[in-house]
Amino acid sequence: MSRIPVAVVGATGLAGQQFLASLAGHPLFEIRKLAASSRSAGKKLADAVKDDKGASRWHCTEPMSDEHAAITVEDSAKMTTDGVRLVFSAVEADVARELEPRCAAAVPVISTASAFRYEPDVPVFLPGVNWDHAALIDIQRRRRGWKGFISPGPNCTTVGLAMTLKPLDVAFGVSRVIMTSMQALSGAGRSPGVSAMDILDNIIPYIPKEEEKVERETSKILGRLTGEEVAPAAIAVSCTCTRVNVLEGHTESVFVELKKQASLDEVKAAWRAFGSEMAGLELPSAPRHLITVNDDPFRPQVRLDRDAEGGMSTVVGRLRADPVLANGIKYLLVSHNTRMGAARGAILVAEYLTKKGYIK
Amino acid sequence: MSRIPVAVVGATGLAGQQFLASLAGHPLFEIRKLAASSRSAGKKLADAVKDDKGASRWHCTEPMSDEHAAITVEDSAKMTTDGVRLVFSAVEADVARELEPRCAAAVPVISTASAFRYEPDVPVFLPGVNWDHAALIDIQRRRRGWKGFISPGPNCTTVGLAMTLKPLDVAFGVSRVIMTSMQALSGAGRSPGVSAMDILDNIIPYIPKEEEKVERETSKILGRLTGEEVAPAAIAVSCTCTRVNVLEGHTESVFVELKKQASLDEVKAAWRAFGSEMAGLELPSAPRHLITVNDDPFRPQVRLDRDAEGGMSTVVGRLRADPVLANGIKYLLVSHNTRMGAARGAILVAEYLTKKGYIK
Amino acid sequence: MSRIPVAVVGATGLAGQQFLASLAGHPLFEIRKLAASSRSAGKKLADAVKDDKGASRWHCTEPMSDEHAAITVEDSAKMTTDGVRLVFSAVEADVARELEPRCAAAVPVISTASAFRYEPDVPVFLPGVNWDHAALIDIQRRRRGWKGFISPGPNCTTVGLAMTLKPLDVAFGVSRVIMTSMQALSGAGRSPGVSAMDILDNIIPYIPKEEEKVERETSKILGRLTGEEVAPAAIAVSCTCTRVNVLEGHTESVFVELKKQASLDEVKAAWRAFGSEMAGLELPSAPRHLITVNDDPFRPQVRLDRDAEGGMSTVVGRLRADPVLANGIKYLLVSHNTRMGAARGAILVAEYLTKKGYIK
Amino acid sequence: MSRIPVAVVGATGLAGQQFLASLAGHPLFEIRKLAASSRSAGKKLADAVKDDKGASRWHCTEPMSDEHAAITVEDSAKMTTDGVRLVFSAVEADVARELEPRCAAAVPVISTASAFRYEPDVPVFLPGVNWDHAALIDIQRRRRGWKGFISPGPNCTTVGLAMTLKPLDVAFGVSRVIMTSMQALSGAGRSPGVSAMDILDNIIPYIPKEEEKVERETSKILGRLTGEEVAPAAIAVSCTCTRVNVLEGHTESVFVELKKQASLDEVKAAWRAFGSEMAGLELPSAPRHLITVNDDPFRPQVRLDRDAEGGMSTVVGRLRADPVLANGIKYLLVSHNTRMGAARGAILVAEYLTKKGYIK
Repeated sequence: MSRIPVAVVGATGLAGQQFLASLAGHPLFEIRKLAASSRSAGKKLADAVKDDKGASRWHCTEPMSDEHAAITVEDSAKMTTDGVRLVFSAVEADVARELEPRCAAAVPVISTASAFRYEPDVPVFLPGVNWDHAALIDIQRRRRGWKGFISPGPNCTTVGLAMTLKPLDVAFGVSRVIMTSMQALSGAGRSPGVSAMDILDNIIPYIPKEEEKVERETSKILGRLTGEEVAPAAIAVSCTCTRVNVLEGHTESVFVELKKQASLDEVKAAWRAFGSEMAGLELPSAPRHLITVNDDPFRPQVRLDRDAEGGMSTVVGRLRADPVLANGIKYLLVSHNTRMGAARGAILVAEYLTKKGYIK
Repeated sequence: MSRIPVAVVGATGLAGQQFLASLAGHPLFEIRKLAASSRSAGKKLADAVKDDKGASRWHCTEPMSDEHAAITVEDSAKMTTDGVRLVFSAVEADVARELEPRCAAAVPVISTASAFRYEPDVPVFLPGVNWDHAALIDIQRRRRGWKGFISPGPNCTTVGLAMTLKPLDVAFGVSRVIMTSMQALSGAGRSPGVSAMDILDNIIPYIPKEEEKVERETSKILGRLTGEEVAPAAIAVSCTCTRVNVLEGHTESVFVELKKQASLDEVKAAWRAFGSEMAGLELPSAPRHLITVNDDPFRPQVRLDRDAEGGMSTVVGRLRADPVLANGIKYLLVSHNTRMGAARGAILVAEYLTKKGYIK
Repeated sequence: MSRIPVAVVGATGLAGQQFLASLAGHPLFEIRKLAASSRSAGKKLADAVKDDKGASRWHCTEPMSDEHAAITVEDSAKMTTDGVRLVFSAVEADVARELEPRCAAAVPVISTASAFRYEPDVPVFLPGVNWDHAALIDIQRRRRGWKGFISPGPNCTTVGLAMTLKPLDVAFGVSRVIMTSMQALSGAGRSPGVSAMDILDNIIPYIPKEEEKVERETSKILGRLTGEEVAPAAIAVSCTCTRVNVLEGHTESVFVELKKQASLDEVKAAWRAFGSEMAGLELPSAPRHLITVNDDPFRPQVRLDRDAEGGMSTVVGRLRADPVLANGIKYLLVSHNTRMGAARGAILVAEYLTKKGYIK
Repeated sequence: MSRIPVAVVGATGLAGQQFLASLAGHPLFEIRKLAASSRSAGKKLADAVKDDKGASRWHCTEPMSDEHAAITVEDSAKMTTDGVRLVFSAVEADVARELEPRCAAAVPVISTASAFRYEPDVPVFLPGVNWDHAALIDIQRRRRGWKGFISPGPNCTTVGLAMTLKPLDVAFGVSRVIMTSMQALSGAGRSPGVSAMDILDNIIPYIPKEEEKVERETSKILGRLTGEEVAPAAIAVSCTCTRVNVLEGHTESVFVELKKQASLDEVKAAWRAFGSEMAGLELPSAPRHLITVNDDPFRPQVRLDRDAEGGMSTVVGRLRADPVLANGIKYLLVSHNTRMGAARGAILVAEYLTKKGYIK
């Protein structure tokens, strides 16, 4: 079976590189085009990620594939979708606003950018959580007159929260959520990202726009498709988002009010069972368990748990009854912000949409 | 005016050293006795804090005072209160359980240990918050037949929380509190304390017994003296306590349900006015402001704010309305766990009790 | 072909766990016995690595193999070598002094302990560097009347230094070496290891006994077998060893005086060619390149390079002429202290000695 | 006595802020002018150090003085020296190349920039080490026809090295020096400085141009004034400079070949006596000891020792005989890169030159 030819735009940035690393040898997708800013255009990828002192700015653990290294990077402002049937977009929001519709006119665009997340005809897929929102794709195409569509992933901080809330909402109903995050450095990107002097022996208590994103996206992802739109879930969410001196992986401290009482064992059972129906789809990037429950009282620990199932499983622990909220529970979670929370999560969405015929 | 002669027990540990550093040149108290475990007994303090390789285990920023260095450390199991009129205790809880009553039979004991915090006739003073609990001292003396008394300070994590809740409770009423802490390494002590391999690029999501202490102590400190006991405040408190890679200073993310609505400006005004009546007492260790409100959206930052007013002021910031709780507000705070949260806070209590005649 | 049955002693410690992780599914060796201190004896391994709060103290990235988890740990003070034909020893030096000879009377002992490194009839193998020292094994057996023998590995800090010096010595002659190390936390073990408060925002400038070990072992490893002993190489080595806040991997800044002048290209060529003859031996744990030369001016970086070839390759970079020493060169190296520098390096030695018939 | 009116250029950057903090309340100098890039020009200093999100970019521990906060910042490209009699320059090298000569035509310029360090008629003062190079000032003025002069300080990494070598050179003669540095983050500035993702759990083994600077400046500072120039000292210096995850303070591992043998006690005595003649000058910023010798085997530690005497004393320790170099010794040093190594060191130079009449 021949692979689907794809483009990666924003290929030289941190998120773009993660697309490249995750797509090397991928059974369904084959990179045919790379695009980035005009500064990189015309260079082979291997050269485009070198800085002016000759130092490599390839940031993934996996080495760059030889095949990708030899591809000449195009200028994303001028690129066309000729010769590809899918675009993975890892550009910043302001670039995305112009670039993604241009591409989507012709082919599907799976994106990590936030530009279109909040438009009513745009689904924000979280694997296993809201596949049924795929019906929005047809609505989006029809309304906008596009052959393709735009499918942005959620903010990396939303991922673990919405993932762990979904099975609770299905089984017991969720009414209120209070969450404090301790987020990794990689969430801020690399140029320049967080200054080492700002975070050593410190915590940065504010990440602009992050809390609003998480509160809004969680409601949308957990919402129900009604008519031609997703009605946001009637769940009140309040967040405080902080940055800590951790390389990768977000930790979240979560307090949840359930609509009906559930024992801690029932909660764990709901989490453990969650997503088992995905196994039948045989999606290459899918973890065996979307949620991993760890009963060790000292887990989850972000350095030890972020890579669970290749960074695609959200690890929860320290589940306790909460004495303050009605039917309250509290727990901690760790999710990998640049795996399930970015490129690999987007690729998993693409795999699903391919199986379902939205990408072909 | 001559100074009150005091003993410091547990003098060689981290908390004990902080008593020593804070008492050097103190206008009210003069160290006459030091006690520690039998391993240190018989050595001069300067030698008692050296390890077997000759390396200093003096951990304070301030150098050891020459006067203190020359004092011969006694065995705390055998020490008497002869010649002192006050004992500062920095021993572990299990040692405190035997040692502190023995001393309190004769003289007041101001302690950082948790052993007696939860006994009904024992006040847990937080400066400026519950001075009126001092009436328990007389009850304690009478019930136990002691000349002295035991006055333990709160857990270091309770300090910033109860401090910032008190003015809210007075002005608006507090009904529910949800808090996630990001605590410093120094809270775990030093022998061995937290292993560097456990915390580098990591968060430890569990601190045994901490959450229970904070929940219980907050209610007691904010409680009202009724008859011969303190009735715990009717405030539901739920915590998740974590350890982060920060040297000193605890950061806490707090969500509060108020009994009546308050604007953010009213909340700030309540915090800013709090404790102003303490100024008249002229206590040497008292900060000008028990609470410092910082309006910079990127504050409080623990490395920058923990030393506010010598580590004696709790710094709050990022005050926002909370959409989940009734009349909800949310904020972050930084408080210094080994200054106001330990020895210096205890010394401030001793200063107050001296002014009020409980120590003489 | 059936695998050789082996024992791992010191199995629950950090180094012991690394033996377990590296031996899971090993083609030549099969663990039949585990031994540790009396505290662990009688428990299954899975339980022996839990602490009293139920938290796992398994510190490897790789999960514990189910097969190993079910083995009941024996008391190393009482264990026999019945049923095994090889012992991997990861105990502390003082335990090794009694245990290893007892085992070596019957079977070969491959050890990471320092106890016997400096005895004249004991080889300290560094893979690819001094296989010819294997002749000492027969001498050791004869002199001591043992069926087995003791083969300790070098100190983890010696490994990268001696590895990179060897090809220089062969090609150009080495006369003087000055080295400053920046060593990882894992080199200090875990119970308690380095305290987080001691190393955050800090460097510890002294590691007791480390410098003497490196200076002495480097000369022995690079020495020549003469008669019944190894004559230390006539290379003057001077070290300063420090500890930095890095999880794993030692960085070393090296200045070398060569006996004859060599261009930088000649030096790189010598490093790149080194160890190529090992390929023919097909040792399962051998890297393709014992030394990896990285020409990026910003490499080697310990976090990025420590895992080169599974932590079995020493990565060198920043090769420059040194203006101070005769025919001087200077460079930096990164080597993985708990892979090639400990258990995996020891296993590679065992693989070699098996191929050569010393272990059977 | 009235204070000398001064300007600080580059006032909003990290080094500039340190000038401001160190000059608040200074007995000899009074800030009358501040200049920075055109982006800051026209704003009061208090506003000029705020970023576009309203967050403060004041990075000093000391609060900004109210007096300084109210000064309106000028555009350094257009500023004149009207009304000031001294300029402290904290601009980057490329800006300095144009700005400093323009100012020096009228008044003395004391700078932390590297632009003029290597010109033959420009002294590079290190306090207490080469005051006699002041004769170059007259030569510089005459040759260039300036009323003022330019006096740049050394690179921060040179400071501790040259400081500790000077008394050795005077007493015993120094012929060869090999040094490996472990440098702090603050040496790289803050916009953007070192990325947190690059340094967490890592070491960066290369700091462009640093090694060349240290080698060259050390020879110049230790050189002898001969005729109209400084003849570089005949000392061969070889460095490897690395960056580690430390906030402030550079650690250096030094190996020295002396011209004649010296006992370790003689070396310590030379260090301890060094600079005692400066006491008579009563320079406000001078430390009591330019060099502090610490005999604890675990010192110097950068977090504990960088602030010795306000960051103005270089702390040495771990002095040992070196077996590789002739009459060799080896030691570690810690010096504060942004105190003696930058603004405060420059102010101390200005104090000296004022006492000696070069600034009036």
